[in-house]
Amino acid sequence: MTYRAPVADYQFILDHLVGFDAIAATDRFAEADADMARAILTEAGRMCDDVLAPLNRAGDLSPAALEDGVVRTSPGFADGFRAIAEGGWVGISADPEHGGMGLPVALASSVNEMMSAACLALQLAPLMGQGQIEALEHHASDELKALYLPKLLAGEWIGTMNLTEPQAGSDVGALSSKAEPNGDGTYAISGQKIFITWGDNDFTENTSHLVLARLPDGVPGTKGISLFLVPKFIPDADGKPGQANSLRVVSLEHKMGIHGSPTCVMEYDRATGWLVGREHGGMAAMFTMMNNARLGVGGQGVGVAERACQHALAYALERRQGRTAPAGDATGAIIDHADVRRMLLTMKAETFAARSIMLACAAATDMQTATGDADWAARAALLTPIAKINGSETGIAVSELGVQVHGGMGYIEETGAAQLSRDARICAIYEGTNGIQAMDLVARKMMDGGEAAARLLDEIESHAEGARADLPDLAGPVWEAAESMREATEWLVAQDDMNDRFAGAVPYARAFARVLGGHFHLKAALADRGGAREKLARFFIARLLPDHAGLLAHAQSGAGEIYALSVEDLGG
Amino acid sequence: MTYRAPVADYQFILDHLVGFDAIAATDRFAEADADMARAILTEAGRMCDDVLAPLNRAGDLSPAALEDGVVRTSPGFADGFRAIAEGGWVGISADPEHGGMGLPVALASSVNEMMSAACLALQLAPLMGQGQIEALEHHASDELKALYLPKLLAGEWIGTMNLTEPQAGSDVGALSSKAEPNGDGTYAISGQKIFITWGDNDFTENTSHLVLARLPDGVPGTKGISLFLVPKFIPDADGKPGQANSLRVVSLEHKMGIHGSPTCVMEYDRATGWLVGREHGGMAAMFTMMNNARLGVGGQGVGVAERACQHALAYALERRQGRTAPAGDATGAIIDHADVRRMLLTMKAETFAARSIMLACAAATDMQTATGDADWAARAALLTPIAKINGSETGIAVSELGVQVHGGMGYIEETGAAQLSRDARICAIYEGTNGIQAMDLVARKMMDGGEAAARLLDEIESHAEGARADLPDLAGPVWEAAESMREATEWLVAQDDMNDRFAGAVPYARAFARVLGGHFHLKAALADRGGAREKLARFFIARLLPDHAGLLAHAQSGAGEIYALSVEDLGG
Repeated sequence: MTYRAPVADYQFILDHLVGFDAIAATDRFAEADADMARAILTEAGRMCDDVLAPLNRAGDLSPAALEDGVVRTSPGFADGFRAIAEGGWVGISADPEHGGMGLPVALASSVNEMMSAACLALQLAPLMGQGQIEALEHHASDELKALYLPKLLAGEWIGTMNLTEPQAGSDVGALSSKAEPNGDGTYAISGQKIFITWGDNDFTENTSHLVLARLPDGVPGTKGISLFLVPKFIPDADGKPGQANSLRVVSLEHKMGIHGSPTCVMEYDRATGWLVGREHGGMAAMFTMMNNARLGVGGQGVGVAERACQHALAYALERRQGRTAPAGDATGAIIDHADVRRMLLTMKAETFAARSIMLACAAATDMQTATGDADWAARAALLTPIAKINGSETGIAVSELGVQVHGGMGYIEETGAAQLSRDARICAIYEGTNGIQAMDLVARKMMDGGEAAARLLDEIESHAEGARADLPDLAGPVWEAAESMREATEWLVAQDDMNDRFAGAVPYARAFARVLGGHFHLKAALADRGGAREKLARFFIARLLPDHAGLLAHAQSGAGEIYALSVEDLGG
Repeated sequence: MTYRAPVADYQFILDHLVGFDAIAATDRFAEADADMARAILTEAGRMCDDVLAPLNRAGDLSPAALEDGVVRTSPGFADGFRAIAEGGWVGISADPEHGGMGLPVALASSVNEMMSAACLALQLAPLMGQGQIEALEHHASDELKALYLPKLLAGEWIGTMNLTEPQAGSDVGALSSKAEPNGDGTYAISGQKIFITWGDNDFTENTSHLVLARLPDGVPGTKGISLFLVPKFIPDADGKPGQANSLRVVSLEHKMGIHGSPTCVMEYDRATGWLVGREHGGMAAMFTMMNNARLGVGGQGVGVAERACQHALAYALERRQGRTAPAGDATGAIIDHADVRRMLLTMKAETFAARSIMLACAAATDMQTATGDADWAARAALLTPIAKINGSETGIAVSELGVQVHGGMGYIEETGAAQLSRDARICAIYEGTNGIQAMDLVARKMMDGGEAAARLLDEIESHAEGARADLPDLAGPVWEAAESMREATEWLVAQDDMNDRFAGAVPYARAFARVLGGHFHLKAALADRGGAREKLARFFIARLLPDHAGLLAHAQSGAGEIYALSVEDLGG
């Protein structure tokens, strides 16, 4: 199964859809011009194609394993991680002060997407590292930054996030891990953490854990939580790993997919840790990590979707079955069949839309960073849960279509289509389930009374107005859809009982993604009149955009019917 | 993970939704009264709960394996199959002449659904047997019937279907297996067949293969194909298995799910076979097998969906996480959250709709059998692909929601939710992919100019009219949806270029299932005023039925956009 990073697609989206030129025009990202972007995407693409993509299957067939307390990684993963580290791809958007490239998140997200497509299980290692780096940059002391950031950025160490405990998943405030001051500025961290991605490995000299725990005077709930940096081996002043810390991997989970990613149960037994941020201020640092990771997980879904597209297309061009369609460019293979084409076009159109949404979110983040403008911050905040939900659901839906294009062969593991589908499934779950993301969207992100959403919908409508003369059949439906979305948003913010919002939160987020997808396809059509992108836009807008209406009916139904059935009615 | 067969649900649907009383009023099914139905469902349910359901996990963890040319089945499967055989559940709807129970397909489908829920991988064995039995009943000589049917019905032997070859999947006419007359009334069968479900086992004394092959004078394509019965061991006149036939299992497939079901590559090397039906008439017999199996596969999806509902509900009632909702019957568990409720209600409402559609199809089949009425035959023919598509997609979607309800635990295999999702995935693929089913729906099933569909939509509209006084908020949307479906059907049959139909065939089938789901939920609401079923109907009709509009927009888009993109445009 081959994969080629879709470099031209990133460039097109950056140049024509999400305003990369505006990012490059800021002082902060002055170096990130079009040439730099092309060079970065091309070089990262080459590594993904040549080094990472061939590892994907090995990760599935030879999962990470725990042997004598040490995680043994899948064949080739050590080399793959070294290539990522040496390319500087862990720290693309990190502060250059400690060794990062300082490039826009829009580029980092593109590279992260490629790496996910090439080998999702391995890409989780740098993704976790990036979250930790950002948390340390924003919240750690200068000493900790100087000691840890160069190691993490160079990929000499791997970073992890330790949030979840058996009784504290989405409800992180329920955690019971403890931290006690040692009196020397360090803390003794004790507790069990679960679902720790890349909690250990056999190819970096150290692992740096960020652990949420509660100090003795921490109040119950999220306000009493602090964040600690807990290394596997305690580094000396020069950063040389020394004494083993009092922590261990208890076991690995047996998962549906991403077998190459070791998902650890970690135990900390008075392990030595250093405070990151202020005491009881752990949640702020955690949100820094998670915001980064949420966009990253959306991008993982897009990456798997892209690979599924390429994989299914290759099969559809090779597999001969049934009489061919009378199309002009009939190939004699199953791609000639209308239903196979419907699936392939759906896959391609969905992936393009999801990538555009992800990069629009990344671009907004960059503009926020570069300008400090509150509107850009609100835009990035609004788009983050949408990008996470839509990216992950696109990964799942498109990889599932990829299985279907393969017919019976899709269900056979050797084909590789099933692995993409199993791998993609995690993206709707981790870094905050999609349900949690949707609640964030309709509650926190609507605390402005829907202003940020309205501004975005204004832009979409005014763009559609401008496109009406050239592409009336495409611009009209996009405008109408945005208007429906505006009405739904107004309905939503008028609901004081949050359950009335929550009951339709996921359909609302899906509808928003449909409208955004229509918008970006329309923009693409304008930039490629008569070309493949206009044709793909026509497919998306005629066939997939109409979904928004059903979703919005669902979104505006309120919580009444949801709670009308008693637990007994449900069979409980 | 426990499972309890939803006996009350079958009874409700049979009694109030699909006209089981009319079936029982026919001479053919005079014995199948309400008492008999209750007894059958209760007894089968007990076996599914107590004997089959506990085997499901073992099938996943200890897949069928090929050892020294013999298939070793998963732990407990031999006992499970014996329980099915001894209960008479292989032959519920088979002709009593050879040992069947002669009961309606509506009951057989209910029992098949339960068995699928309890252990999908094992249930495939009796399902394949049923297909073979029906094919033999309709097409085999009296001698073959007398020799094989009692063995198959008693579950002493297992039956298989051998259609697919590497180059001949959906395009069965491309097969290259050969049959040569031996001169003594038997034939020498040679060729390789793939994807042979339950191609061998270690618990029945014989396996009876139905094999499609081409005689020397068979023309290319489907019209030159004949069907042969090829036993693993050649039985003597008393049915005692004797000499080993010249056939073998070459290998087993490594699949995404249903690990307990051995999916065999079979090789026939001048194996002795007996003709079933007339020479070159194999396709007719194959359609008999497949029609049975198609409804059965739809039912498999419903079964997995039901189990996923029960499994997710149990978790949602047990898992405590986050602040509880202010609902009256707050439990303190995650079921109090609006988004979790949305998922659970979606699962339950979808499963009910899919079960109703499946049983409506089964009931039409029974009325066709009992009355010979062409309208019932057309109804059954129309509903079969819809039941297959909708049942399988419901299994996939609902089991995926089941994973999501479990959050992080859903991705961990020990939980069992992931297995349901992996298992369900096959149902959209085998016995004719859903794409093939949809093509059948919009082409063959519309050769009457859409009359059968129009009659069904007439009934739905007139039922909605009748319900308007009592339940205007539910009846109105159902009537409207049926009317949209009628318009779409009229558009469809007006398309002479079949690709214009095929390009939207799957969305058309999905929309039809939405309309049928709305109809059956409305019927259920009328029969349970103020009860849980009315509340569930309100959920379905307000939130899920509106999907039909987007689907119908897709369905009526024609093939233009589908073929506008060249292979090169697609990246090929």
